[in-house]
Amino acid sequence: MDEIKSRRNPLAQHFRRLGADSGYREQCGEFICDGLKLLEEAAACGAEITTAFAVSPLPVPLPAGARVFGVHKTLLDYISPLKSAQDTIFSCRKPPQGGFSDLQGSYVLLDGIQDPGNLGTIVRTAHAFGMQGVILTGNCADPYNPRAVRATMGAIFKQSIFTADISHLAAMKTEGLRFIGTSSGAQSGRGLNGLKPAGSGARGVAICIGSEGNGLSREVTELCDDVVSIPMAEGCESLNAAVAAAILMWELRKCHH
Amino acid sequence: MDEIKSRRNPLAQHFRRLGADSGYREQCGEFICDGLKLLEEAAACGAEITTAFAVSPLPVPLPAGARVFGVHKTLLDYISPLKSAQDTIFSCRKPPQGGFSDLQGSYVLLDGIQDPGNLGTIVRTAHAFGMQGVILTGNCADPYNPRAVRATMGAIFKQSIFTADISHLAAMKTEGLRFIGTSSGAQSGRGLNGLKPAGSGARGVAICIGSEGNGLSREVTELCDDVVSIPMAEGCESLNAAVAAAILMWELRKCHH
Repeated sequence: MDEIKSRRNPLAQHFRRLGADSGYREQCGEFICDGLKLLEEAAACGAEITTAFAVSPLPVPLPAGARVFGVHKTLLDYISPLKSAQDTIFSCRKPPQGGFSDLQGSYVLLDGIQDPGNLGTIVRTAHAFGMQGVILTGNCADPYNPRAVRATMGAIFKQSIFTADISHLAAMKTEGLRFIGTSSGAQSGRGLNGLKPAGSGARGVAICIGSEGNGLSREVTELCDDVVSIPMAEGCESLNAAVAAAILMWELRKCHH
Repeated sequence: MDEIKSRRNPLAQHFRRLGADSGYREQCGEFICDGLKLLEEAAACGAEITTAFAVSPLPVPLPAGARVFGVHKTLLDYISPLKSAQDTIFSCRKPPQGGFSDLQGSYVLLDGIQDPGNLGTIVRTAHAFGMQGVILTGNCADPYNPRAVRATMGAIFKQSIFTADISHLAAMKTEGLRFIGTSSGAQSGRGLNGLKPAGSGARGVAICIGSEGNGLSREVTELCDDVVSIPMAEGCESLNAAVAAAILMWELRKCHH
């Protein structure tokens, strides 16, 4: 295992930027993950691991082409974008984004979810509840932000994620995806009826979750075929976005399976 | 509004310690909160606000006895335990803990939930879904940790929270509280049947959520009358603890209302 000892090493600097800068991640087509648990998931899922830094020899066999470098813990802490760095940090190539046509089944659409932890948790839950994809629109956090990746607990390697603008969404609707908006507060009174299958015509459903601060944008609201709300105790305004998304995916799954 | 300008001011130091040290919070019987949103909730709920620091005059009338001090933003940032400090930080007296006897209705028991954000989110969800109380056991995060308080979005002022050891739990069980454990993974196969009302005898139900890393402790598992698991897609090991708790509280509420 080759060693890297200097903070100024170009690969160390490359990792620092991958951790901190979503534009750089986009440009390089790579993202970084931390910890053995994610490394095992990445290897098991056939993710294209490019480089790993490790404080001790890795117990997981890496795919051909992956380079591994030994580092001291202090250098790992320097490279890691996360507090409490784990024993390894590694980079993966971002998977290519799939096409938007012919979407069928159940989706969750996130409209401006900005907290990376919430976004990663929603990706994790979407995978657990068998959603076909997570669609990001508006000003969402980057799903390849290291905090988001950690919160997915490996689902980042398994769950399809799309980034779409409003014209993509309109095209999906034209092709038969039914959009269901969510409004917080019991006052809207519709409850969850809108989750029920809408009979013929719809080939798929997308539950739309707005940002905690602002809810759904006007553009997404106008696309919605129906609106649902999660009944809550009086005086409650809203749920955490990841919790609201989980309840709705859970109920959607029960309606459509 | 009196001003405080020095980091060495005793009240500024008091706030710093309240933010950082759960033992000090326990000793003083106070905790701190940040932001106007929480201040409004605290005032509306009749919480005993003791001291507030603010960068500009507060738009919320504070209860008698609350002292307000003006501070510059840089000092507020210094005092605040949270990144991105809001425009105000204030301290409240911790409410007295209620007794453990005569518990009726629906509870969520957290066994070693260590992430303050998850814990606060669960308190928020418990309030939204009408739970009678949140019971903390094992090595849980402090619900009065500033990150936990922020994640409750005000539910900290409304939701009953108990801290209990295993002997308290055994006494609750003797008095008629039914404990329902959770196990992750579809393999356990029981699904959610155990949530259904168990007929006569039980005066209340407590859903038990274990820590992400280790699940339920042996002691709590042994108290459980039944075990449920949330069905998940193949290959999924677990959900985020706040998500799992939300799904179970949601289903419990549907079973018992």
